[in-house]
Amino acid sequence: MKISLRLARESDLELMMAWRSQPAVYNGFFTQNAPLTWEEHWNWYHTRGPHWRIYIIRVDDGKTRERDVGVITVAQLEYWEPETGLYVGEVSLWGKHVASEALTQVLGILKDLGYKYTRTTILDSNEASKALYKSLGFYRLAEARLGESLYRKSL
Amino acid sequence: MKISLRLARESDLELMMAWRSQPAVYNGFFTQNAPLTWEEHWNWYHTRGPHWRIYIIRVDDGKTRERDVGVITVAQLEYWEPETGLYVGEVSLWGKHVASEALTQVLGILKDLGYKYTRTTILDSNEASKALYKSLGFYRLAEARLGESLYRKSL
Repeated sequence: MKISLRLARESDLELMMAWRSQPAVYNGFFTQNAPLTWEEHWNWYHTRGPHWRIYIIRVDDGKTRERDVGVITVAQLEYWEPETGLYVGEVSLWGKHVASEALTQVLGILKDLGYKYTRTTILDSNEASKALYKSLGFYRLAEARLGESLYRKSL
Repeated sequence: MKISLRLARESDLELMMAWRSQPAVYNGFFTQNAPLTWEEHWNWYHTRGPHWRIYIIRVDDGKTRERDVGVITVAQLEYWEPETGLYVGEVSLWGKHVASEALTQVLGILKDLGYKYTRTTILDSNEASKALYKSLGFYRLAEARLGESLYRKSL
């Protein structure tokens, strides 16, 4: 299974919204506990500013065709420690190391761009996400908002 | 809010899969009780044959942009009584008459094509779907598979 990344386009908004509207996905988000509305989603995309990148994770299984399966966001690129966010929207792919491989590629991009650190926040209840980030070398730095912790990785 | 239809393309597969992977959507399907796998979904699409049409439902709210929000399938077009299937994947749009308007348009297409009848099957537990189809003139004809009934409409 080959994993790659491409930059998201505005025409990906429906797909990103559909992925994020699954409880299995949005239960991992701090700020969301119900399906999005289009207007919220549209506003989110159009207010990202120049210091954001949104990557679409792609999978090629060698049998069907290459397809879009999830998202990695990179925020605060103007800062010395940009923040990553991630979800695999194709939930039946969970547990197959797609997130790990895609995130490794993004961490490589950040390192190539000259960043020394990156961070993320994870809900304390999200065991899968904590295990994923820890396996890639992230460590818990401090608490963040209620029920959430801040993790850092040296690149 | 303007509702329109377009024919689905192969490149819509990710979006249709993401919509169908929401419990709120797939709980209305007879044959699905867990998120799809890509391979099932891919095979489904590529085995539809010539007597199927898949329409994407589009909404224009007049404020953001026209967008894809759901699906209407028409099957057995070679038969005197084609079958329709429907879901609004953008679940935060439920209750806003999108399905009703889109289905009305599809029924118009079937009538224009010369069909006199159309049918659908609905889970007996799906009150929203039963109310929708009854409001458009469908009536319960008989039982179908376990826990499901067959509905018909004269065009």
